[in-house]
Amino acid sequence: MIDLNSDLGEGFGIWRLGDDDALLDVVTSANVACGFHAGDPSTMRRVCRLAAERGVAVGAQVSYRDLAGFGRRFIDADPAELADEVLYQVGALDACARAAGTRVSYVKPHGALYNATVHHDEQARAVVEGVRAFGDLPVLGLPGSRLLRHAELAGLRAVREAFADRAYTPEGALVPRRLPGAVLTGVDAVLAQVLRLAEHGELVAVDGTVVRARVESVCVHGDTSGAVEHARRIRAELESRGTPVARFAAD
Amino acid sequence: MIDLNSDLGEGFGIWRLGDDDALLDVVTSANVACGFHAGDPSTMRRVCRLAAERGVAVGAQVSYRDLAGFGRRFIDADPAELADEVLYQVGALDACARAAGTRVSYVKPHGALYNATVHHDEQARAVVEGVRAFGDLPVLGLPGSRLLRHAELAGLRAVREAFADRAYTPEGALVPRRLPGAVLTGVDAVLAQVLRLAEHGELVAVDGTVVRARVESVCVHGDTSGAVEHARRIRAELESRGTPVARFAAD
Amino acid sequence: MIDLNSDLGEGFGIWRLGDDDALLDVVTSANVACGFHAGDPSTMRRVCRLAAERGVAVGAQVSYRDLAGFGRRFIDADPAELADEVLYQVGALDACARAAGTRVSYVKPHGALYNATVHHDEQARAVVEGVRAFGDLPVLGLPGSRLLRHAELAGLRAVREAFADRAYTPEGALVPRRLPGAVLTGVDAVLAQVLRLAEHGELVAVDGTVVRARVESVCVHGDTSGAVEHARRIRAELESRGTPVARFAAD
Amino acid sequence: MIDLNSDLGEGFGIWRLGDDDALLDVVTSANVACGFHAGDPSTMRRVCRLAAERGVAVGAQVSYRDLAGFGRRFIDADPAELADEVLYQVGALDACARAAGTRVSYVKPHGALYNATVHHDEQARAVVEGVRAFGDLPVLGLPGSRLLRHAELAGLRAVREAFADRAYTPEGALVPRRLPGAVLTGVDAVLAQVLRLAEHGELVAVDGTVVRARVESVCVHGDTSGAVEHARRIRAELESRGTPVARFAAD
Repeated sequence: MIDLNSDLGEGFGIWRLGDDDALLDVVTSANVACGFHAGDPSTMRRVCRLAAERGVAVGAQVSYRDLAGFGRRFIDADPAELADEVLYQVGALDACARAAGTRVSYVKPHGALYNATVHHDEQARAVVEGVRAFGDLPVLGLPGSRLLRHAELAGLRAVREAFADRAYTPEGALVPRRLPGAVLTGVDAVLAQVLRLAEHGELVAVDGTVVRARVESVCVHGDTSGAVEHARRIRAELESRGTPVARFAAD
Repeated sequence: MIDLNSDLGEGFGIWRLGDDDALLDVVTSANVACGFHAGDPSTMRRVCRLAAERGVAVGAQVSYRDLAGFGRRFIDADPAELADEVLYQVGALDACARAAGTRVSYVKPHGALYNATVHHDEQARAVVEGVRAFGDLPVLGLPGSRLLRHAELAGLRAVREAFADRAYTPEGALVPRRLPGAVLTGVDAVLAQVLRLAEHGELVAVDGTVVRARVESVCVHGDTSGAVEHARRIRAELESRGTPVARFAAD
Repeated sequence: MIDLNSDLGEGFGIWRLGDDDALLDVVTSANVACGFHAGDPSTMRRVCRLAAERGVAVGAQVSYRDLAGFGRRFIDADPAELADEVLYQVGALDACARAAGTRVSYVKPHGALYNATVHHDEQARAVVEGVRAFGDLPVLGLPGSRLLRHAELAGLRAVREAFADRAYTPEGALVPRRLPGAVLTGVDAVLAQVLRLAEHGELVAVDGTVVRARVESVCVHGDTSGAVEHARRIRAELESRGTPVARFAAD
Repeated sequence: MIDLNSDLGEGFGIWRLGDDDALLDVVTSANVACGFHAGDPSTMRRVCRLAAERGVAVGAQVSYRDLAGFGRRFIDADPAELADEVLYQVGALDACARAAGTRVSYVKPHGALYNATVHHDEQARAVVEGVRAFGDLPVLGLPGSRLLRHAELAGLRAVREAFADRAYTPEGALVPRRLPGAVLTGVDAVLAQVLRLAEHGELVAVDGTVVRARVESVCVHGDTSGAVEHARRIRAELESRGTPVARFAAD
């Protein structure tokens, strides 16, 4: 059994990004932007409503406060302030989710905060502290990350995920976006990676090394070209081969 | 019995406004800024913690999204979006309050939104809809305002308040800030207004007319010069004359 | 001879709006967003560079400070502050324009500020004061607006424009966007309106009244569906019928 | 001869920081915040006007876009975007300065950008590129910084400065703010450091090492407690001992 998660609600005001409606028909978990890198209250409520109608789990996609940089730039934020910002974002989204008859059922950091908390111990702990200040929610992240380690130490459920369309190093880290080959482009490569993850708990790194990667969730990006088609193919293929696609998070 | 409320947590980042700590020792209800006109997550948590320690009620001081104008400028916001923004702000503050062992127990609009919802029917209804989307919280406002009317229609508790240091028209409206005499400056004038409100349910308008004003709460502004001293004198005088000062809102 | 202007550079960070590159091949004046309702420094420089390469005039599309509302909501801004905000925006864009070898050669308010300055005397004067604080630039606006009147009184060139795709009232005002029929949808209706404006100095209001409208510029919106195709057809048709399409503003 | 510079105009909207008016009577160069870490258009115009009246040079205190963090947090900004942001800020301030009859006559990065460009080669070059895109302005910075090196390579005047109230390492770097002793607190210690800088071109590091430090300008912070009194004493003492205090930058 595997969960499919995607970043959603990443517009702001008049601006849109990705096809929320189409992806909500495919994924089982929606990482909803909370207003710090993207997302405004009306978009948040709308995505929560659509997710609730489809039984899709709502997760808080928390971020550095950086609309201009879409949360993709590392910010050397004070850990105590970062924890407070996580709490604020989760609370704001939870209000939107409850108004839609559901609730926030996990947290996943976005962009540069996701990358930073792989190794930045203080920021990883800060994110976990922010989550715990809200409640005992599962945290979604990279296997081996400081983030998941701190989640476990804090008694939270640590949910390991992999990316359908990102290349990995032999150490199991993501190939940085700025390097060539960081993003898998063909649907076949994406599909092969997901099937291997779901069926064998492993993936093939850029240098050909086979890396152990037991994950509970796979992220299909919402803003990549072809994202919706990739997601549909992934779900169909998984189900046709007998792997159930289902959310990991209870409401 | 009367409640004393004050606007608190109205700094942002490095900037501070008013003396939160001193006022929290005097008032019984704290209208906490939620990040749209002022207030950042760390300030919000700090004020909630101090309020919880003192048994001061935490209220969400919701606002237009306008840091540059401190929420003091009317914005012709779309009512549906405004409702969503209210929900977002209340949710964010409630997360901070719960982390401090308390919760948001009422909502009061700030600045231009407060003034607009006296007469702007659509925005008044939108604020109430945003509150109801969160839960059945009391709404604090001007007697006779569309805001309190919509709160009542929606089945919410409508809490009437007056301002300790603001002059009133014979119709019971606030004299606009831009007019001379809008703000009472001497502590004696402020004190006289509060005592008359608390003991007789009336106030004296700028033209000398006595206006009926049965209120449950009195607002002592946090950013007026002498605010803390005024608040202390008001509380001491009320208590020495036998009027208990106590929060209107249950947790 | 007629000028074609369009709103450009209206993305922000990762978000895009409209097809700047295609429109820059058609229009003669680019109203470039300056960061208050849309537009970031990199987008501004890019549009200025493309405009300079094509000989398209760069205008400052100044706005209320309102990214979340895309500048489409009236803000009751203090006139003195509004003037300063106009000056700030024009200065920022002019730096981008000069770095691209051109300069800001006119100013046009955006969205709600455009609409407000049709009748709001204080805000109209404030915009003109902000422009004059920068320099003697032409101001683009609605015929009969307070904005153009104040521009004339201040000794600035007042440039009258009409909208290719907006319906007009018999008084020569725009039919508000929220009303049905406010935006002309078919290319034929748009084309007919532009040709009548360019060749006869008049347009037909929603009720069939013929309204006098001698304009120097026609605005083709950048974010309407079909904007690019409309603009190309308009330009081709005007030129084939002998009306030169050329910028009104000198560098 | 020595220049005294200070960070000014660092309020935002309703919030104030430091005593601009008093400091403008003492310093010879005003580093004016440009809206990215602090500073709004009205504050910028006001400070420019007061500076022009007093013959104080106006410098652009450019920053990362970070109001919430007051520009004190490193942001891993893309160099090309950073250059554009510098250009935008200088242009906006220059418009305010020209409206006040003066102009921007130098650039100094603020906070975390100042610290980053000491060693971060790409960001240092980006700041210089942003300045050059505007024009050939002097750049104020730490002796030995990548920033000043890139300024020199680009043919700009590199102006070395020291801080009146900051402790230095034996290598001539600032002791980070988070470490004890980073800020000199007594006026005597501050005065001793400035006099030694001005008269001998050297300073004493935290470990007692004497460090060579030939500087053209000394920064007196505007937001430190006692800043105004320190600045007055520094200026008086320098002048009484025969060192003229004068701006380094021509208009």
